[in-house]
Amino acid sequence: MKIVIVGGVAAGGSAAARARRMDDTAEIILLEKGSYVSFANCGLPYYLGGEIPNRDSLLLVRPELFRNRFHVQVRLNNEVTEIRRKEKTVLVSSPEGVYEESYDKLILATGSEPIVPAIEGAALENIHTVFTIDDVDAIMSKLDNGVEHAVIVGAGFIGIETAENLVKRGIPTTIVEMKSQILNILDPEFSPPIEAHMKDAGLEVRLNQSVKAFRGENKVEEVILSDGTALPADLVIISAGVRPRSQLAAAAGLEIGKYGGIVVNEYMQTSDPCIYAAGDAAESRHMVTGKPVSVALAGNANKQGRIAGSNAVGGRLRYQGTLATSILKIFDLTAARTGLTEREALANGLDCFSVFIPAPNSVRYYPDAGWMILKLTALKDSGKIIGAQAVGDKGVDKRIDVIAASIYAGLTVYDLENLDLCYAPPYSSPKSPEILAGMVASNVLRGDIRLVLPYQLEQFLKETNAELIDVREIPEWNAGHIEGARLIPLDELRKNPEQLDKSKTYAVYCGVGKRAYDACRFLTQHGYDVFNVTGGYDAYIMDV
Amino acid sequence: MKIVIVGGVAAGGSAAARARRMDDTAEIILLEKGSYVSFANCGLPYYLGGEIPNRDSLLLVRPELFRNRFHVQVRLNNEVTEIRRKEKTVLVSSPEGVYEESYDKLILATGSEPIVPAIEGAALENIHTVFTIDDVDAIMSKLDNGVEHAVIVGAGFIGIETAENLVKRGIPTTIVEMKSQILNILDPEFSPPIEAHMKDAGLEVRLNQSVKAFRGENKVEEVILSDGTALPADLVIISAGVRPRSQLAAAAGLEIGKYGGIVVNEYMQTSDPCIYAAGDAAESRHMVTGKPVSVALAGNANKQGRIAGSNAVGGRLRYQGTLATSILKIFDLTAARTGLTEREALANGLDCFSVFIPAPNSVRYYPDAGWMILKLTALKDSGKIIGAQAVGDKGVDKRIDVIAASIYAGLTVYDLENLDLCYAPPYSSPKSPEILAGMVASNVLRGDIRLVLPYQLEQFLKETNAELIDVREIPEWNAGHIEGARLIPLDELRKNPEQLDKSKTYAVYCGVGKRAYDACRFLTQHGYDVFNVTGGYDAYIMDV
Repeated sequence: MKIVIVGGVAAGGSAAARARRMDDTAEIILLEKGSYVSFANCGLPYYLGGEIPNRDSLLLVRPELFRNRFHVQVRLNNEVTEIRRKEKTVLVSSPEGVYEESYDKLILATGSEPIVPAIEGAALENIHTVFTIDDVDAIMSKLDNGVEHAVIVGAGFIGIETAENLVKRGIPTTIVEMKSQILNILDPEFSPPIEAHMKDAGLEVRLNQSVKAFRGENKVEEVILSDGTALPADLVIISAGVRPRSQLAAAAGLEIGKYGGIVVNEYMQTSDPCIYAAGDAAESRHMVTGKPVSVALAGNANKQGRIAGSNAVGGRLRYQGTLATSILKIFDLTAARTGLTEREALANGLDCFSVFIPAPNSVRYYPDAGWMILKLTALKDSGKIIGAQAVGDKGVDKRIDVIAASIYAGLTVYDLENLDLCYAPPYSSPKSPEILAGMVASNVLRGDIRLVLPYQLEQFLKETNAELIDVREIPEWNAGHIEGARLIPLDELRKNPEQLDKSKTYAVYCGVGKRAYDACRFLTQHGYDVFNVTGGYDAYIMDV
Repeated sequence: MKIVIVGGVAAGGSAAARARRMDDTAEIILLEKGSYVSFANCGLPYYLGGEIPNRDSLLLVRPELFRNRFHVQVRLNNEVTEIRRKEKTVLVSSPEGVYEESYDKLILATGSEPIVPAIEGAALENIHTVFTIDDVDAIMSKLDNGVEHAVIVGAGFIGIETAENLVKRGIPTTIVEMKSQILNILDPEFSPPIEAHMKDAGLEVRLNQSVKAFRGENKVEEVILSDGTALPADLVIISAGVRPRSQLAAAAGLEIGKYGGIVVNEYMQTSDPCIYAAGDAAESRHMVTGKPVSVALAGNANKQGRIAGSNAVGGRLRYQGTLATSILKIFDLTAARTGLTEREALANGLDCFSVFIPAPNSVRYYPDAGWMILKLTALKDSGKIIGAQAVGDKGVDKRIDVIAASIYAGLTVYDLENLDLCYAPPYSSPKSPEILAGMVASNVLRGDIRLVLPYQLEQFLKETNAELIDVREIPEWNAGHIEGARLIPLDELRKNPEQLDKSKTYAVYCGVGKRAYDACRFLTQHGYDVFNVTGGYDAYIMDV
């Protein structure tokens, strides 16, 4: 059995090690067009900022280790230029010349490549992507020589992580984003608090701005935005997303999906059963929609590589699909998501609803309890959980992971409210944010409460002619309230509900949704038509 | 509808609020024999240490709030002394005298009480439990007057938390435990690293020691241990566990379980359908075994109180059972568990196996990656996950919560290896500890690897006459190795497997189990009879 693996980073490296573990006699050849295998792609931004001080630590598995421990032939700077499926060979361009290599099973782990938009001046010096060891070596040498102004193009994962690390080095940095929001993987209402936090941390943010041109002699000197602004820049990082590297597969006539990824079955086999694909280059199946998606995530690449490596030597492991679970550090904030955002769910035609839970990470009385806003999305009919997003200062990773496991398992919001999770004051609350989200969502489905989403409040008030009631206390109201609201603190309202009008509709809010829930329950039972603004003032002001 | 609730801490408070939310017209009376309702029981040790500086913050919901917001009649210092089921009344002893109160539905949330062993001198002054606000008020006044030596009796949750907080105040403190291990909720092999950490933090630990007597005039002066040691002590904290407070229910003829808890159905109804019980006083059903258990945990109490409160006013919520998920801070360590420990699983006659995963919390190349040892236990036939335990410096809560959700959902180890969890360098690894545990356990069930548990290694070597091979590198071997092992670094072994004997059995270990896995796969395929010591040297030395 002869296995040829094309590409040696996450998926390719995993495939090689797994194939060897499962079959000690196979001949395994790893062809990598770059100079490194198994490097820590996700660590690159942190190396730029000095958070990861040691460049060597980015090189996770050396070629020698592959050779000595796994008896894998690693050939660096060997680029596969053609797959000859009939002959079961690949054509390889190497420093020593072009050669043909035969295979019994071929694994394509060709990864993804950064999208570099066709912008005037994009070929100037000091314009980089952050994608390979060579990239960070080049950027680092410029940082070492002193950078005056950096501009990051694109406010996605790598853009934000790189921006944070440049700011930490003391470099005045501006991040430019074409869309109206930061971090498109979240619903738009999460963008303003992230933007505010970035600005507080010293990062300039320009939304709704595309780059018209890069200007300069030889080296970049200015970035011209669509509104005409000229940002000074002697370093530019392009982080405008990635696309699957599937050209080789496409040229060989393998099926390619609509997002550009190589189509595979659950065994990671392409349309040619002798050829497997894994990682960013391959399409993944989304666990919630069942539809193909293109994700460029390390966890996915490692899992798929392992499955492809197993199956290429005769295994039958099955890929279970992705939830596109992802997480990002943004200075002192964390943002994460799993499953579908509400926007994605609606785009997929799913009849869903969402709840907002602004909550501390642990009990309020314990010091440094933290804070997060969690959004949970579920199907209206069954209560099946389909997605969650959160932004906060700690515990976000934990809550999203618990919900990711719940979605994987097909749990409903009724299950979520019954999970038995760790509680002690330093770690959580007896009613933790995700359990609370389950409780609120279950209350909705049981018909105990009706919700208005904070960012739909304005439209709701207009359409229903509802009156908005703030049930908080006077000092809270004075510190800020929603325009047009009427203040009736909850205990006052309870004393005298007759001050309201049974022929009208009311939307009620408080700080986070709890007192408004009490008010709604009370008023509903007294014959009033009421809705709770989910997440309360905390969720409302997130987006204004 | 008239609801009487007996006991106003976690379960009682939740029941009162929920009953009001579901039924605004019910008459709700909350009878509490103490002077406080809804106080932060779990926060008490941290108040003693000053971590929670403000006593007021322990009083979560004041009686006035219950009265004004929820129209719940709260009667403090009102102790129910008898339930007259035929008359549907309770007899109440109050500062104003004894009276009878009728009910339509009664909710017993009488909680638990600390076990105070009958030890000579236990009535001396300055011997306390840490269970109520009155307890910590009394202890605090002694701390304020200066304490020279504290002794904690019992190394469970409250004992350890209190010990940590007294040490943080600078008080020389000794913790005495009758059993041979600390923290009986974990399997015994986790005890030594916790003990070592406690000692490093300045806490004296005495295992296998019961208290024979407390000595002193009026106030305690010495604690006499079973080995005759006399420990000086001017403050003693008894934390020898708790038992359900079910005497009232028992006297009324309600069914009581074998652990002393009030027997309830899934609706939290006792054997009298007009009487509900919730929280520490009630029995819970264990989700894995389906058997009744007695747990005294806040999350459980809150959930059960909410269900009892709902159902008492006509709801039909169901309690889904407990996993006895629990967590504990021990200075800079965290220890947690969910489901069954291996010891509990075996005691329940379950045919299970366990894997050990010593792993960093995040990728190794990111600073402060942390460290934990995770033990996962699953059924041998189906791979169904039945329990997990972990000790580490960060991320333990997250891993245990993910596995708790997985057990709730009935997932197997094959599912665990496929979960799609959050990964970015500051938070986790692409193969996070729980996913790794799923992979290793799946490898076992697929027959790819055979494991030996580190604490069964000695017996295994004796029984099988196996030879023990250490496949680490020379510097690691020199820093410490298992006695009787033979060093053959993995790459050397791979070069020359013929140095081993095919007629013998081998147990192989490395640092954490990964290189030994590679060695086992390699040797197995070359016809050798090999076992991997799960968790490697890290798991082995935990227990020696």
